[in-house]
Amino acid sequence: MIQDNYIQFECFYASEQQKSQYADFLNKSHQANCQLERDEHEGKDFLGWLHLPSATSTQMLDSIETEANRLRHICDVVVVIGIGGSYLGAKAVTEAFVKPLSMDDNDCRICFAGYNMSADYMQMMLDYLSNKRYGIVVISKSGTTTEPAISFRILRKHLEQQVGIDEARKRIVAITDRSKGALLTIAKKEGYPTFPIEDSIGGRYSVFSPVGLFPIALAGIDIRAFVQGALKAETFTDDKHEGNIAEQYAAWRQLFYADGRKIEILASYNPRLNNIAEWWKQLFGESEGKNHKGIFPASANFSTDLHSVGQWIQDGERSLFETVLEIKQAEYKVEIPYDKENIDNLNYIANKNIEDVNASACLGTMKAHAEGDVPLLHFSMPRLTPEALGTMLYTFERACAISGYMLGVNPFDQPGVEAYKRNLFTLLGKPGY
Amino acid sequence: MIQDNYIQFECFYASEQQKSQYADFLNKSHQANCQLERDEHEGKDFLGWLHLPSATSTQMLDSIETEANRLRHICDVVVVIGIGGSYLGAKAVTEAFVKPLSMDDNDCRICFAGYNMSADYMQMMLDYLSNKRYGIVVISKSGTTTEPAISFRILRKHLEQQVGIDEARKRIVAITDRSKGALLTIAKKEGYPTFPIEDSIGGRYSVFSPVGLFPIALAGIDIRAFVQGALKAETFTDDKHEGNIAEQYAAWRQLFYADGRKIEILASYNPRLNNIAEWWKQLFGESEGKNHKGIFPASANFSTDLHSVGQWIQDGERSLFETVLEIKQAEYKVEIPYDKENIDNLNYIANKNIEDVNASACLGTMKAHAEGDVPLLHFSMPRLTPEALGTMLYTFERACAISGYMLGVNPFDQPGVEAYKRNLFTLLGKPGY
Repeated sequence: MIQDNYIQFECFYASEQQKSQYADFLNKSHQANCQLERDEHEGKDFLGWLHLPSATSTQMLDSIETEANRLRHICDVVVVIGIGGSYLGAKAVTEAFVKPLSMDDNDCRICFAGYNMSADYMQMMLDYLSNKRYGIVVISKSGTTTEPAISFRILRKHLEQQVGIDEARKRIVAITDRSKGALLTIAKKEGYPTFPIEDSIGGRYSVFSPVGLFPIALAGIDIRAFVQGALKAETFTDDKHEGNIAEQYAAWRQLFYADGRKIEILASYNPRLNNIAEWWKQLFGESEGKNHKGIFPASANFSTDLHSVGQWIQDGERSLFETVLEIKQAEYKVEIPYDKENIDNLNYIANKNIEDVNASACLGTMKAHAEGDVPLLHFSMPRLTPEALGTMLYTFERACAISGYMLGVNPFDQPGVEAYKRNLFTLLGKPGY
Repeated sequence: MIQDNYIQFECFYASEQQKSQYADFLNKSHQANCQLERDEHEGKDFLGWLHLPSATSTQMLDSIETEANRLRHICDVVVVIGIGGSYLGAKAVTEAFVKPLSMDDNDCRICFAGYNMSADYMQMMLDYLSNKRYGIVVISKSGTTTEPAISFRILRKHLEQQVGIDEARKRIVAITDRSKGALLTIAKKEGYPTFPIEDSIGGRYSVFSPVGLFPIALAGIDIRAFVQGALKAETFTDDKHEGNIAEQYAAWRQLFYADGRKIEILASYNPRLNNIAEWWKQLFGESEGKNHKGIFPASANFSTDLHSVGQWIQDGERSLFETVLEIKQAEYKVEIPYDKENIDNLNYIANKNIEDVNASACLGTMKAHAEGDVPLLHFSMPRLTPEALGTMLYTFERACAISGYMLGVNPFDQPGVEAYKRNLFTLLGKPGY
């Protein structure tokens, strides 16, 4: 039974032939979900995320909130250092709820670093921080991943020079391995507060662990509601639940892929979800893209990109399917004013909330893409709240694992990521390479 | 003869079989470029961009700069309203040179609106503007495109209420059709300064017209150097020039596509180029994605996305090729400090500029992807300057037109963009639909 305030899912359009195969794929999807619950698959040592929402104690949430609030109050800016799974979840959720930084004059700002090695980006950040009261959250399991390790070394030194070693110690929090590694060693030595990264939770499945929760709390977002939403999804997507959205989504995806639809576009109509798509791309791309298989994950921000890749979607190669992420009710209402001169011819929608026009654009585009033979899946959230987003993100995690099993790959490893690192270390002359 | 400070291009990796076909494709590419110069193709009424850099008068540049400087000095923030081609070029170039807004405390800030219909986005913008001294640049050929028309109606009213109609008139500039349309009518009536959008220049080819140049000048970027760079490329990519980069790029792209490489990823290693990729996606996606044909344009921001779609690129379906956009020398140098404790094991790169590490990541990743059988094209700019970017963007425009001709489509129309608009107007009950 789906509650009214739960996320909704439908297949908005599939061809008749595709529909005729659905029961079979749903059955396979259900089997994969059962495997997941029974730990019967390779990658079973990486299932720490599966029951994480129900395993997260009030005590853990309390300690994250307490520490995040302490840091918020002594800093005007906090730089969160991380890359990949130690960055995308926090960025996606904070940017869904916090005003775009360019429009935010107050509060504790969150900036991100350690996800690139651009000297220009780092210098601009150092310039910006030079007259700010700032702190650092560093997120890395080993503490030796090149990008975040470099950023932390530079920023830590900068902060220590700015406020002294003692004060810097109060402004740095580390999220890292529970029992070993370079970052844990530094944190212990300096006395930084730490939160654990468990061995059984890979980066891209870590948004409900302290890796995601700490920066989210820091941004003033209700992590209890976020975890509560995930908990609802955890219960709802177990292998005993009828109308299981995660199984349905995984079934349709793999069905379309088997039918030659090689690209999935995640489209949203609210710019607050833009970074959710980036998180989703890592989740699915890194989980499925191996053994020369996998759906290519792309994203579109509509209606902007209707004037960009929209043309390709409508009329280009018929090799993609689309998944729309809709928010049924926006937080704000903004009316289109009536204009007695009406030179722009907009009076036919005067006094309407622009979000209603946006909803019509969403539906009109879905219809247009269906008419263009683009298979189309449709998620909707009643409102963009931490709880609804928790439900949505957990559902994606679950569907991703199921989808990977159906595809016949291990959705929890990422062997291809090592290739560039080996070459990088060789080029840099790292000892041992 | 390529000058030392010109952009460079190479095919970094292609299979032996692909290489054997190159001469043939280069010949086709050259023929397409000749067609372009001789106006022998459908779409010939939309070639206003082809010799735009050489046709742009000093007088036009003067008047854009004068007007932009006037507006800059009376505003703390300018909202630029536009969508698709009336937005992506300006956003790409300004964000390449202006500090990320979140790190910029001074100067005249540029914000963008009219590229979505999100009530949340609009309300946050109105809140932000409510205590700012702001102005508006509205960019629309007709003045009736739904997204920018709605935003302009709302923001114009907001500004008029904030400062009065007379003062608002001084703070609004319109870029629109030279002789007709709703926006021109409003601009004339209110006395707004205007700059023209020519019939022969489609939105996605308009970055060197006032559509791009005015917002770029507003951000304090040297538009003379930008146009000068484009002019170099205009000369260098004509059909008589040997070693023509645009022809080479178009030839390789179409060769890879014919060989089953359906997706092109534009990858860069400098976050300042992130929005260049969005502009590029519209240019190529909207030009080629028709008649059920066309390369799917995607983008990646490395090294961030090496921990995301990197896995898929390395090990997923062998259905893509990659184009790397590299900047040889960053604007800044940031050294990795030496640390006597060296717990993070980074001393092997201590005292190096992080941009050198970034360059190694770029080369190491290119090698890794080549080892993974990903065909790889490589552009490099000596430095990120307005001139170099002008050269780069014009080269992409030229290559895109050539590429579309080779593919057998009209690279200057976008028939599929109408489909969603028709549905939208029907849903909204617009008279006549």
